[in-house]
Order: sequence, then C-alpha cells, then structure tokens
Amino acid sequence: MKSLVHIILLSFFLPNIATAQEESKSSIKKLYDNALTTRKAYNQLGLLCEEAPGRLIGTPNSFIAVDLMKRYLEDLGADTVFLQPFSSPAWICHSASATMIVDGKEIHLNIDALGPSGSTPKKGISAKIIEVMSLDEVRELGREKIEGKIVFYNRPANPSYFNTFRAYSEAVDQRYWGPSVAKEFGAVGSITRSATNNLTDFPHTGSCELKGDKIPAIAVSTNDAEKLSAALKNHPHLKVNIKIDAEDIITNTYNVIADLKGSEKPDEYIVVGGHLDSWHNTEGAHDDGVGCLQSTEVLRLFKNLELKNKRSIRVILFMDEELYQAGGNSYAAYSKENEIKNYFAMESDAGGFTPRFFTIGATDSIVAKIQEYKHFLQPYGIKNIIAGGGGVDIGPLKEFGVPLSGYRSDWQRYFDMHHCANDTFDKVNFREMQLGSAAMASLIYLIDQFDLAE
Amino acid sequence: MKSLVHIILLSFFLPNIATAQEESKSSIKKLYDNALTTRKAYNQLGLLCEEAPGRLIGTPNSFIAVDLMKRYLEDLGADTVFLQPFSSPAWICHSASATMIVDGKEIHLNIDALGPSGSTPKKGISAKIIEVMSLDEVRELGREKIEGKIVFYNRPANPSYFNTFRAYSEAVDQRYWGPSVAKEFGAVGSITRSATNNLTDFPHTGSCELKGDKIPAIAVSTNDAEKLSAALKNHPHLKVNIKIDAEDIITNTYNVIADLKGSEKPDEYIVVGGHLDSWHNTEGAHDDGVGCLQSTEVLRLFKNLELKNKRSIRVILFMDEELYQAGGNSYAAYSKENEIKNYFAMESDAGGFTPRFFTIGATDSIVAKIQEYKHFLQPYGIKNIIAGGGGVDIGPLKEFGVPLSGYRSDWQRYFDMHHCANDTFDKVNFREMQLGSAAMASLIYLIDQFDLAE
Repeated sequence: MKSLVHIILLSFFLPNIATAQEESKSSIKKLYDNALTTRKAYNQLGLLCEEAPGRLIGTPNSFIAVDLMKRYLEDLGADTVFLQPFSSPAWICHSASATMIVDGKEIHLNIDALGPSGSTPKKGISAKIIEVMSLDEVRELGREKIEGKIVFYNRPANPSYFNTFRAYSEAVDQRYWGPSVAKEFGAVGSITRSATNNLTDFPHTGSCELKGDKIPAIAVSTNDAEKLSAALKNHPHLKVNIKIDAEDIITNTYNVIADLKGSEKPDEYIVVGGHLDSWHNTEGAHDDGVGCLQSTEVLRLFKNLELKNKRSIRVILFMDEELYQAGGNSYAAYSKENEIKNYFAMESDAGGFTPRFFTIGATDSIVAKIQEYKHFLQPYGIKNIIAGGGGVDIGPLKEFGVPLSGYRSDWQRYFDMHHCANDTFDKVNFREMQLGSAAMASLIYLIDQFDLAE
Repeated sequence: MKSLVHIILLSFFLPNIATAQEESKSSIKKLYDNALTTRKAYNQLGLLCEEAPGRLIGTPNSFIAVDLMKRYLEDLGADTVFLQPFSSPAWICHSASATMIVDGKEIHLNIDALGPSGSTPKKGISAKIIEVMSLDEVRELGREKIEGKIVFYNRPANPSYFNTFRAYSEAVDQRYWGPSVAKEFGAVGSITRSATNNLTDFPHTGSCELKGDKIPAIAVSTNDAEKLSAALKNHPHLKVNIKIDAEDIITNTYNVIADLKGSEKPDEYIVVGGHLDSWHNTEGAHDDGVGCLQSTEVLRLFKNLELKNKRSIRVILFMDEELYQAGGNSYAAYSKENEIKNYFAMESDAGGFTPRFFTIGATDSIVAKIQEYKHFLQPYGIKNIIAGGGGVDIGPLKEFGVPLSGYRSDWQRYFDMHHCANDTFDKVNFREMQLGSAAMASLIYLIDQFDLAE
C-alpha cells in the first residue's frame, strides 16, 4: 500500500521536478550565453584598474573606486544603490625603499612596505641582518641574538605543491606574525620573503600584525631574497637600510551596496560580493577587481535575463578586506542593527581564472543540499562543491548562521600576481572571468529557486 | 579449493602490487617536484621563440629551430640525437596585406595569408565581396553570383561554448575548404573570418586546401570581419584589394629525434613529441613550442631522476604539422621502412595551460587499462583519461596499431593565441607548462612500468 502511495505521489511530483530541472538548465545556459558575449563588466574592470589602482582604504583612489562603482551599479539599473558608511583606522604608504650595504656599496632591493608598517626617519634605519626560516627560530635565538638587528624571514612558499594556496598559507605566517615576533625580541626591523611560489622581481606586500610602537616591516621579492641570502653568506656583517614613510589615519569610508528586489521575499537577501580595496602597489585586477565585477555581473545577468529572483540579490563591494577587514565587519554590524535577513552570502576573492569549484560554509545538510546542484554546473567546468569557508568579507556573517560560499578558480597563476604590481588588467582573460560570473549567478539562481530549507 | 588458491596467490602478490603502487606514487612526486623547480625547458622555450619565430617548414627560421633544439637535446644528455631527413613541398609567405575600398578610400584590414595561398600581382587583385555564412551558401549561390568576386566567409566561432575546441572545429571548415569551394564557382579570392571565439585585431591564419591554379586566400581578424560586414551593409558594392607575395617550394628538412635508451627493451620506443614548426606570423609559443619543450622534459626528467625506463623514450620534434603534415607522415614511413617498434606515442599540441586530461586512441581494453592509472594523476589536476585521438603528428602511426595519446590542457585561452601574432612566450606560464611536462612524464612512466599488454 505504501509503495502504491509512493508511486501515485511520484507520478504527481516527478513531472514537476523534471520541468523545474529543465527550466533551470535552460536558465543556466542563458546565463552563460549572455556572460560570454557581454564585455560590459570586463571593460568596467579595465576602467577600475586604470582609474583607481592602489585603492587601499582611506586613499584618494579608494574614494574614486567607490564613486566609479556606485555609478556603474546605477547604470546597470539596480533597484537601490547606496553607500553604507563606516569609520575605520587606515594606513597610508607614501614611499618605501631598501638597500643592502655591502663593503660600503648600496645595492637596491625590490621591496615594499607591509601594511601597517611603521615609518623610519628620513635617512632610514640601518642594521645588521639575521636570517631565519621560521617564527620559532626567532624565539629560540632570543633577545641576545635578535636585539638591534633586522630579522629576515626567508622560508620559501613551496613551489612543488599543486595547490598554490597551500604553499601560500604555509609561508604567510612569516609575513603576518613575523614583524611582531621580531619586535618582541628587540629587532629594529623585519624583512619577509614574498609569500609566492614564484621566483620574480616583484615584491608582494600584505598585512601584518603590528601595534603600538611599530617597527618598519617590508616584503622583499623572492629573487632579491635569494640575493640577500647569498650576500649574507659572504658578508655576514652586511647591513640593510630601510626607508618607509607611512601614516596611520582614521577614515570615514563606505561599502558600496546595490539591490535587485526579490519578487516573493524581498526582505531576504542573497549577498554576493568582492572587495573593492586593493594594496597600494597594484591595480588589483585579480585581487579583487575581478570579484567585484563578477558580483555586479550576477545582478546584471538576473536583471537583463529577467530571471525573477524570489529573494533580493544584494551586491556588496566591501571596502578594506586587505588591511583591517573593516568592511566585512561593518556590514555584519549593520545587518545586526537593522535586523537584515541575509539568506545566503557568496564571495569571489581567489582570482578570476578558469572556474574550479565552490566552497560552502554551512550545516552539513545545507552543504549536502547545495551539492545536489553540482550536475548543473559540471558542464561548465565547476567540478565540485565542497565544504569550506566563504571568504574574509562575508566571514563575520557566520555567527548569525548565514550559509556562506566561496567561488574558487584555477590557482596556478594566482601567486604570480597576488599583492604585487604584476596584478594588472591585462592578466585577466575575458572568458575565464565571465565563466566565473556565470557560475556564481547560476549557483545563486539554483539556491533561490530550490531554497535551502533543511 | 579455488578460493584458497586465490587467497594464497593474493597474499603472495598483493604486497608486491602495493609496493609497486607506492613506488609509482613516489616516482611521480619526484617528477612533479623536479619539473616545478627546474626552469631549463621554460628558458629554452623563450630562446626558441626569440631566435626562431615564424618557423614554418622550409623557412630559414625552421632550420635555426632544428639546430637549436638538436643542440639542446644533446646538452640534456640524450643517448642518441639525430635528424631524420625528408623532402616535402613547402610554402613561403613573403608578404600579405588587404584594404577595403569604400567610396574610393582605402581602409586597412588586419589580415594574414592562409597557407598555401596563391599570390597576386604586385598591385593586388581587387573585386567585389560576397558575404556568406557557410560553404553550402556558396554552392547554393552558384557560379552566377560568385564568379569574379571575393567570397567572404563570416560565420563566427560560437563564443558561448564552454569547449573552445568545439567552437573552433565548427567554424574551421570555412578556412580549410572555403578557398577551394570559392574557386570552384569562379571566385577570384577568399576571405575567412579568423577561427577564434575571441573578438580581436589579430588575424589567425591556418591551412586551407588549395591546389593547382591557386586563388589568394586570407584570414581577417574577427574585429575587422565585423567592420567589413558592417561596411558591406552600407556599401554593398565596396571592393577589397588583396596583395599576397608567396611561393611554393620543395624543401629538404628534418624531424629532430632524441632517444633515451631503455634498460630492458631498448628496441621498443615510447614516442613523445610536439611539432617544431609554427605559422609564419607567430612565435609559436603555445602552438607548439610548449609541446616540444614538454616532450624534451620527459627525457630530461627520466634521465635526471634515473627512473630507468624499460623501453627507449624517443622524443620527436616534428617538422610541418601546420602546412602539409609531412613530418608525421615521414616518421611513420621511416618507422615502417626500418621496422621500428613504436610501443606507444604521445603528443602535446593543444596548448600549455593548466592540465586537464589525456585522450587515448587505442583498443577499448588498452584505454581501460590506462584509465586505471588515473588515480595517480588526479592529485595533480589531471581529472580524466578518455577515449579519443592522439594528435596530427602521431596520427599516421595508428594504422600500425600503435596506441596513441593526446595531452590536453585548459582550453579557455587557447584561441586567443592560436595561429596568430599573439602566441608569444610571455603568454606561457611556467607552472602551467611544467605541470603538463610532469603529467606527460608520469603517464609514460606508468605505461612503461605496468605495460599495456591486453
């Protein structure tokens, strides 16, 4: 009897399910067709990179970027575009340089300041170098060996890993904690080998944990890390001179937000975003201009294809992912204060290369539910949907139980560009970027259509 | 009783199988570690692109390329390096240009000659244009509409396909057969929209089937195809002038071959190769400098890591894949004549991007056998091994029953570069290229270790 009921129920529901599946397939095809033939977002990325490079929070270019993207979202025909204001510490780097002094000769080093490095006197600070391979080595050497010196962290990011993010994450503790650990033992400065698996002349900057009376902290290019290390072998008493002119400020700035109103549940928001800021030394094309424009594409695609989102789609271009993560925290606080229902949040901040997978940070049952959509995306190169984090900007929404997702593209080239002057618009391929835009729009479409209810 | 025998046999063999698997895993890791930290092949690719661009069969640069790569293979310490000579028709393009003439004004078009286009008088040929979307359209229009005109094939490669090779293969009939079909109906010239899904100013050349009294045949950039098509709408009587200076020659040239002698079956050859020639308008970095250097890497890696190949590894840098496929045919004939046992053949000629998969052209059981090795390669991004072709150069070995394999990398960027001046060394990423070298060496290692016996 039970199975008869089953059959009757199935015969009733299956055609609907089949129709819904066919409709989804057809909508997803439209998303890809449109994304791969529309250069609007790609051209806007070019403009952003050209008009507002080095758009670190608080810099003049960060405000140009806010204005440029607000107008762009208005032009796309979003239902609402607004700036969500917040106040935050910021750090402005005016200049940074370094030389190594060997036998009285000054030799240029390709370096950049880490944010928020301390400044030096105009003539810089000069000191002997102590080369180490880890934070623990500094702790073992202790104050006696470290005091008055510049600590040089030189452990490479492993170039033989297939997963370049793994190589980065295993090396980056030297950049993030290195300066403060060095300072703890009396160092007068800190140099970190750039956190990239590539051998290059570009210094790769990034954030470090430095507070109070800050020492100068720099990243040196991997090629010059090798050069400095080799020179130290022959000249153990060589000195390095570091000159940094930077300042700490408080700034009033904004997240840029645009909504496309939902037809059934307009008060529920599906957030999609990237971060609008970039480091001071780069156009920030892949990190994270691409993520911003892929997010605006989700809105444009839904609107232009009239996909009738049930919930509101909210694009957020977060200010300050790089330095203090103020934008993400500020939006979470704003959501709490205004009791905003963030139904789901997706972030793109891992490069705009050929699509690979999505990560989902949610309960097991929601992860499993979203994994059921995988077959829709596999024909377009999304090979997997796996449990994992969402992203730095949307991370603070986790404590409110918002399911998060991170878009991930092929990672082989990412650390050739990450946080350095090599991250330019010409490194972004139109098709690769737009396959990501369409993948993001497709997953959001599926989640909005089929719901996440457990 | 039978199952007891089974258990005894299993208990005897299983540890050996497990050990062999562990040893293979360890060897493959060594291959990747070495490939991702050794820039020798990448630097040599840079040299090849710089010293011998436009190395089409019979050109001076093709002989420079032969010399450069022969010496490189000798330096790698191959056991034997030799030039396998053959004679072939060739085609040398001295110059190619075109303008459209609108209201008496000559407007430059970004074009290139297809190989082996016919030449024109010095002042060129000028004729009215008839725009078509297919070969069949020419046949339908017939001699009355075609005679005395230049046929302009303008069907785009579909930009919304995920698989760019599919888009290419659906469009390329216009390039390959277009000129001869046009000529059949009395056309005086042929223009084909470049076979790329990209909108760009680069003309993409390629081969066409033209014999006897040849008409001039050119490719126009996709941007200028749009421009020409738009101009035709307003000026249906506009003319295009085509100037081509090219000549047909017979050349004596070479495949470059290097062997690393096998320890157990030195008379059986595992062939791995790419093609050394490139079109006249390009450095030929991805097509197919990369394939050549990935193939030489297989030899270098086996030698340097002392992997003790049982069979001889034979690197072949084929001359003339692009124009008449003379190198591949010549090696097959040479093999037949000398009764060479080609045990397996692999080709890399689909770009040097992040690895994706291998195709295998062999019996079902051999395909199935090789698919068993998949799990070794999946951690390094080779997601699949599928039935399919091998490649143009090794294709002629098929009739002798040689199992073939093609290496395939991510195809999103390939047709931005294919057969055009944009295919330059700086577009090749070190890691992406070397992941391919290691993947190829790994699959060859597995085939050599575990054999292909059915």
